[in-house]
Amino acid sequence: MSGPDPRAFARLLCGYCLDAGAGQQVVVRSTTLAAPLLLAVQHELLERGAWPLLRTELPGAAEEWWAAARDAQIDGFPPAELAEAEQTDASLTILAPENTTALAGVDPERIARAARARAPVREAALRRRWCGTLWPTPSAAQQARMGTAEFAGFVRRAMFLDRDDPAAAWAELGAMQARLVERLSAASELRIEADGTDLRLSVAGRTWVNSDGRRNMPSGEVFTGPVEDSAEGRIRFTIPSSPRGVEVSGVELELRAGRVVAARADRGQEYLLATLDTDPGARLLGEIGIGTNAGIDRPVGAILFDEKIGGTVHLALGRSYPETGGRNESAVHWDLICDLRAGGRLTADGEVLQQDGAFRL
Amino acid sequence: MSGPDPRAFARLLCGYCLDAGAGQQVVVRSTTLAAPLLLAVQHELLERGAWPLLRTELPGAAEEWWAAARDAQIDGFPPAELAEAEQTDASLTILAPENTTALAGVDPERIARAARARAPVREAALRRRWCGTLWPTPSAAQQARMGTAEFAGFVRRAMFLDRDDPAAAWAELGAMQARLVERLSAASELRIEADGTDLRLSVAGRTWVNSDGRRNMPSGEVFTGPVEDSAEGRIRFTIPSSPRGVEVSGVELELRAGRVVAARADRGQEYLLATLDTDPGARLLGEIGIGTNAGIDRPVGAILFDEKIGGTVHLALGRSYPETGGRNESAVHWDLICDLRAGGRLTADGEVLQQDGAFRL
Repeated sequence: MSGPDPRAFARLLCGYCLDAGAGQQVVVRSTTLAAPLLLAVQHELLERGAWPLLRTELPGAAEEWWAAARDAQIDGFPPAELAEAEQTDASLTILAPENTTALAGVDPERIARAARARAPVREAALRRRWCGTLWPTPSAAQQARMGTAEFAGFVRRAMFLDRDDPAAAWAELGAMQARLVERLSAASELRIEADGTDLRLSVAGRTWVNSDGRRNMPSGEVFTGPVEDSAEGRIRFTIPSSPRGVEVSGVELELRAGRVVAARADRGQEYLLATLDTDPGARLLGEIGIGTNAGIDRPVGAILFDEKIGGTVHLALGRSYPETGGRNESAVHWDLICDLRAGGRLTADGEVLQQDGAFRL
Repeated sequence: MSGPDPRAFARLLCGYCLDAGAGQQVVVRSTTLAAPLLLAVQHELLERGAWPLLRTELPGAAEEWWAAARDAQIDGFPPAELAEAEQTDASLTILAPENTTALAGVDPERIARAARARAPVREAALRRRWCGTLWPTPSAAQQARMGTAEFAGFVRRAMFLDRDDPAAAWAELGAMQARLVERLSAASELRIEADGTDLRLSVAGRTWVNSDGRRNMPSGEVFTGPVEDSAEGRIRFTIPSSPRGVEVSGVELELRAGRVVAARADRGQEYLLATLDTDPGARLLGEIGIGTNAGIDRPVGAILFDEKIGGTVHLALGRSYPETGGRNESAVHWDLICDLRAGGRLTADGEVLQQDGAFRL
């Protein structure tokens, strides 16, 4: 078998990730392409005495929704969706794209308007237990520039579904990350060095989050929000990024007193500059994250995976997560990834934490 | 084109049947096999400013639900489903089976328990605007013993989707039925005569319902609840019936003072006798209906169509619809159909209403 076994995957999601229990109502969103996993998740939830509420999107339905939607539908939401988010106990979102560029023809401004309008639904869902994951499809494999079976095997390894006890493997990574968080929580200044990169920023007083696979499957990162005016230096992001299907690569940023003061990109420079001008917070960093997942050995064009590559560091332009102590506000949250594996270093108050992609704890 | 055009079908459903308007939330239930119609319904609802809430079942999901469900899930329901039924404006249920006998292996008693438990959800949905219809699938064609394209053409004609203006054709049938209802409302005693059939029953004081395609698509029937103790005589139901996938044919009933006192069947006699013993109301008639749809020219093993065949009369064992003035209560509501087209007569207070399947109004 090359890809994830649906039953083992479903057990990991309903158990380790969601801990779904008797009587709990669990909304499960995906497309019909994830049918094997959806049926296994339904089975697992029923065995746990929970209520599976499947919301399965038909191929083409999202694209046709955007083609037909009117202003009132872009700028609003059905009240039943908010009620559902408020009345259910957990939600599981399984990416299973038929075409990762399905919405390439939709005006990004309309997508942004809809995201703003639906904020109450999103926020209500985030107040409950939630998890986001991916089921490998030919389209997701194509985005990764892999064969479909090859990509399915990659996904299986990324989620530790090739291990005898995937949940135990995640708990083990979580324990390693707990030590990393302990070390980072005592640090004031982080420095990232690599070819074209020498950036310092402060994380003094900020809270580090141990992302151990419960909310993102796969995960494998620790992150916080840097002190807003602290970043100084320059950084070259060596891993491409595909926000909303736009290809952006070779991004280089120069930061002074926390703000991006110069920016260029090999591809997607126009998109980069427009994004930086979205609002004042878009030029500040909202997150610094450190990837730890050794099962993710290369970028696949999906941020769910790429930001967790063991041996990388990522910074997000824009909004910070309040639970980190970060205070930056913006409509933007764009993760950009710097690969340190081919030669690079992450230091904390002058002490090497990671060299050429390997941790030194 | 042999089958229903999805756009025309969607317009009929969202317009004539549901009259969906701006801001209304419309729950649409079906299986992935109805994808072309579901996408067209989504489009039509968006154009009307309504909110489509698609609930699309995966092939195999229902069968696997029943295989894994535990007692608490059989005997309960997720509160979010009741909330949805109460908070939305309309519901559209589109039968689109992958296998009409998918639940043949499920204990009928468990299905009955689940139906009882979910009564509050069902009743809440019925208090809103609702419509039930069918999208032709290979499985539904097989049940009808037709080729898939042949059955699709049959469905198209049954729903008047072969007409230039289907909604106008339905309104025209509704006007004809209004005259029939007017005539029947003045009648006391109905008599059904055919080979093996001579039954009299009273409909004095009862209300006739004009079923003109808004709640069932297709429809084409008028019905009421007969006076509970009035039926006298015998009747042979010449059109087979498939309650819950069980084949029953050649049913003959003898009734005295409204109660079934003798019963036999060529096929499914055991099921027939067990059904009559379900509860006291199961031996009484809850409905008499008269089919008027000339587009439905033969039985297809789906009650949505068969009970509307122009030139037939059907009686239901069990529960009556309260809006007719019928007062019979039962867990059973089983429509059995008597074809009068090959030689038969329906008279009202001695005046012929229908002879050999043709109305005389």
